[in-house]
Amino acid sequence: MAKQVKPAITPVRADDYPEWYQQIIKASDLAEKSPVRGCMVIKPWGYALWENIVRGMDDMFKATGVKNAYFPLFIPLSFLEKEAEHVEGFAKECAVVTHHRLEKSDQGGLVPAGKLAEPLVVRPTSETIIGDSFAKWVSSYRDLPILINQWANVVRWEMRTRIFLRTSEFLWQEGHTAHATADEAVARTQMMLDVYARFVEEFLAIPVIRGRKTPSERFPGAVDTLCIEAMMQDRKALQAGTSHFLGQNFAKASGIRFQNAQEQEEFAWTTSWGSSTRLIGGLIMTHADDNGLVLPPRIASAHVVLLPIYRSDGDRDQVMAYTEKLASDLRGQIYHHRPVQVEIDTRDIGGARGWDWIKKGIPVRVEIGPKDIEKDALFVGRRDDDPKKKTSIPRARFLQDFTAMLDDIQQQLYDRALDFRERNTQPIDTRDAFDTYFTPRSQEKPEIHGGFALSHWCGDAQCERQIKDALNVTIRCIPLKNQQEDGPCVCCGRPSKERVVWAKAY
Amino acid sequence: MAKQVKPAITPVRADDYPEWYQQIIKASDLAEKSPVRGCMVIKPWGYALWENIVRGMDDMFKATGVKNAYFPLFIPLSFLEKEAEHVEGFAKECAVVTHHRLEKSDQGGLVPAGKLAEPLVVRPTSETIIGDSFAKWVSSYRDLPILINQWANVVRWEMRTRIFLRTSEFLWQEGHTAHATADEAVARTQMMLDVYARFVEEFLAIPVIRGRKTPSERFPGAVDTLCIEAMMQDRKALQAGTSHFLGQNFAKASGIRFQNAQEQEEFAWTTSWGSSTRLIGGLIMTHADDNGLVLPPRIASAHVVLLPIYRSDGDRDQVMAYTEKLASDLRGQIYHHRPVQVEIDTRDIGGARGWDWIKKGIPVRVEIGPKDIEKDALFVGRRDDDPKKKTSIPRARFLQDFTAMLDDIQQQLYDRALDFRERNTQPIDTRDAFDTYFTPRSQEKPEIHGGFALSHWCGDAQCERQIKDALNVTIRCIPLKNQQEDGPCVCCGRPSKERVVWAKAY
Repeated sequence: MAKQVKPAITPVRADDYPEWYQQIIKASDLAEKSPVRGCMVIKPWGYALWENIVRGMDDMFKATGVKNAYFPLFIPLSFLEKEAEHVEGFAKECAVVTHHRLEKSDQGGLVPAGKLAEPLVVRPTSETIIGDSFAKWVSSYRDLPILINQWANVVRWEMRTRIFLRTSEFLWQEGHTAHATADEAVARTQMMLDVYARFVEEFLAIPVIRGRKTPSERFPGAVDTLCIEAMMQDRKALQAGTSHFLGQNFAKASGIRFQNAQEQEEFAWTTSWGSSTRLIGGLIMTHADDNGLVLPPRIASAHVVLLPIYRSDGDRDQVMAYTEKLASDLRGQIYHHRPVQVEIDTRDIGGARGWDWIKKGIPVRVEIGPKDIEKDALFVGRRDDDPKKKTSIPRARFLQDFTAMLDDIQQQLYDRALDFRERNTQPIDTRDAFDTYFTPRSQEKPEIHGGFALSHWCGDAQCERQIKDALNVTIRCIPLKNQQEDGPCVCCGRPSKERVVWAKAY
Repeated sequence: MAKQVKPAITPVRADDYPEWYQQIIKASDLAEKSPVRGCMVIKPWGYALWENIVRGMDDMFKATGVKNAYFPLFIPLSFLEKEAEHVEGFAKECAVVTHHRLEKSDQGGLVPAGKLAEPLVVRPTSETIIGDSFAKWVSSYRDLPILINQWANVVRWEMRTRIFLRTSEFLWQEGHTAHATADEAVARTQMMLDVYARFVEEFLAIPVIRGRKTPSERFPGAVDTLCIEAMMQDRKALQAGTSHFLGQNFAKASGIRFQNAQEQEEFAWTTSWGSSTRLIGGLIMTHADDNGLVLPPRIASAHVVLLPIYRSDGDRDQVMAYTEKLASDLRGQIYHHRPVQVEIDTRDIGGARGWDWIKKGIPVRVEIGPKDIEKDALFVGRRDDDPKKKTSIPRARFLQDFTAMLDDIQQQLYDRALDFRERNTQPIDTRDAFDTYFTPRSQEKPEIHGGFALSHWCGDAQCERQIKDALNVTIRCIPLKNQQEDGPCVCCGRPSKERVVWAKAY
């Protein structure tokens, strides 16, 4: 290992994980708090990540036949009330529009005026308003399936917010489909979970477990909720995407009826599935280190930064010409379906310049000085290496191997994350061992404990509740690819047929 | 001209333009009204147009150094009040969030609860909330310029709405920049107007006039508003994009200060510029005809539909194989920066199938039957031709010439629109002639009158007001490339130095 350097982020991960997370976001210039309670400002370096997520995921959706559309931001209160569990799940966190005008008050300030006959809820999710359209679009089995996705902002009025992970407004996609049979809808639910899993593993380099939520963790109104769960560096779980089989619940609530081939009227079977800017939080907490953000190349806001170095004006011209030519050669290359994105940083700020890009997590840094140019070589640093490790590489070879280098970084990051998860996942068979596993090991570093426990569960919600109350640990999912095995419930000892994934969670 | 066919849209353009417009949207399946007052549902065929607008425009923005970011949906009331003209301009049409929760009422229904200390306005535009961020981001002239764009939804509570043209919620982009000097901000205002003009002419095939708004038509709070104006088929004007020089008004309101190179503190100079889903309304009203929508290939939701024709199962296999191969060959081609988009329609609905695609405005239709396959030829119809005109073209030549055919359609549509505008634009020098020009020529067809009048204006807002009150005609813009010419104001006769563009407008 190269010589230790002082970490760029204070505190380091091991000392105060939540504060480290905030510092990473600040140091990498991804986003910031806004003056509006719980809402964030996503800055260009952060928004570029979202653009890349949108592009990558959108292509995958479309390849399965899904088309994009757009539905109203506002949902009439009466629509939300159509599905009882659904409204119950969202009523406590709804932003409500009650007026459509501002008027001068007697005191001179502006006050809301023009009261609406029916309050409008800013969409927390769109099942009910999209269901209303589906009901109009469907009359025969020939109109099915309908496969729709929407990229949109949604609002859930959260009391405790954290940038990207839990904000009052966030950006997301929500897919909504309607089918003639339950089997087809169940297959679509599974298919979209697979899309999420593939996207998160292949683009974000985050390994995930595909599973099913227990009834108490289901989406309000769903018959079945599938999910992908990832492990963050503090060993907590992050739900990175969910796909819901809604049965006929929402079709009945919205009146999505069709005539089948036998000319009988039936309710359709629907699904919905969503993922959000929360993925960026997951990206940070999977890969970032004590020197800042670490971006997997396939999703990175930019792939490489060129750092020209010169003292004299004569040097400057030569170095800049060489740099521009290199940038142009790199931009002509395609890496994983998009042209290579190159930044050139000519700021005169000394060593802070390189550190800035380390903190921003760019995969590759290239220093270009007069001596390098003499040798027609570049001085190259990789973000997955120690920051002090830089290697001189002949320009031609660098260009030839550049996309392979990006692939190698991508793979490294995935492998490290998978290794971390495996080292912090273990089968636990007794309640005592379970309690110990999830109890902080040190007063000073309360974050260091636990991980994923693979333990038996009898299927009773009471056991879930008891463990949640005692340890703040929940069942993240029942893995889809699970081995059948007899064992005792880790809570009550009653018989169970399979182990489930228990963890603390975001 | 080929044999007349009965038009697919009733009423035709000439009889009832507003109703024709609604019928076009319905027949082409672009969008529909929603149960939420004034909000629209953009259906997949319409949303694909928006996706193409976003992609095309976004590339052009980025080429000028602009980066995307995202700011909160909600604006605290106190922010909106910071700029007096600004809040005045938007207060009458604001959706106001006053509560953040729903609770069961005594009657059992849900009612708003959790009253907010300060009401939040759903953004009608984001100058004030983005200004707040800029104030944090800028401290030195070295931090300038800041060049930001946001793709977002906005809400303006309109009383009379029309799909795409005026809706309470719409999708748009809003660019916001901050500069160290007035000159640089003015140049950026002009640059973004040029981007809009190029985009609208090159992608949407809509010719535009670049101009400046009179003071009474400026954006609330702007020092100068530039615009592009297009002529619709009912001879009314549509404002298709605006670019505002905001001076230091918003910098003062938001406190965007910087130290200049002489270490003196100054307020920054800002701009903003926007375009919206309204462009889709302009697209419809420029190109659609009595048979439905007509889509310019560079923006079309898809470029070509393949219509396989067969009677027997044996025919079916052969025709489908031939069709799939053709689709694959077409999809391998690039037209104007994107892969050719191909639809295959196998519905068994007879002649209605071809008409469906004519109504949807797809640029090229290709019929493929056993007899065509024998000759290795295709039966091709172009949307810019009469619907009955179809031509047999050898497959190889069709493939070779396909993108050139698309370019030809694109050019045809632009040329027709330009010709229409020129035929309906005239210099008018007297108030009598002006009144006649803008007075309906027939009781039965009240839409048939006027166009653009190029008439002198003295510069007095009173004259504008008088003509608006009398004829509902306004100054659309003072063209940027204008000839200096002495003449009498068409309203009051006082001297004027140039002609301006007068018209009725959307």
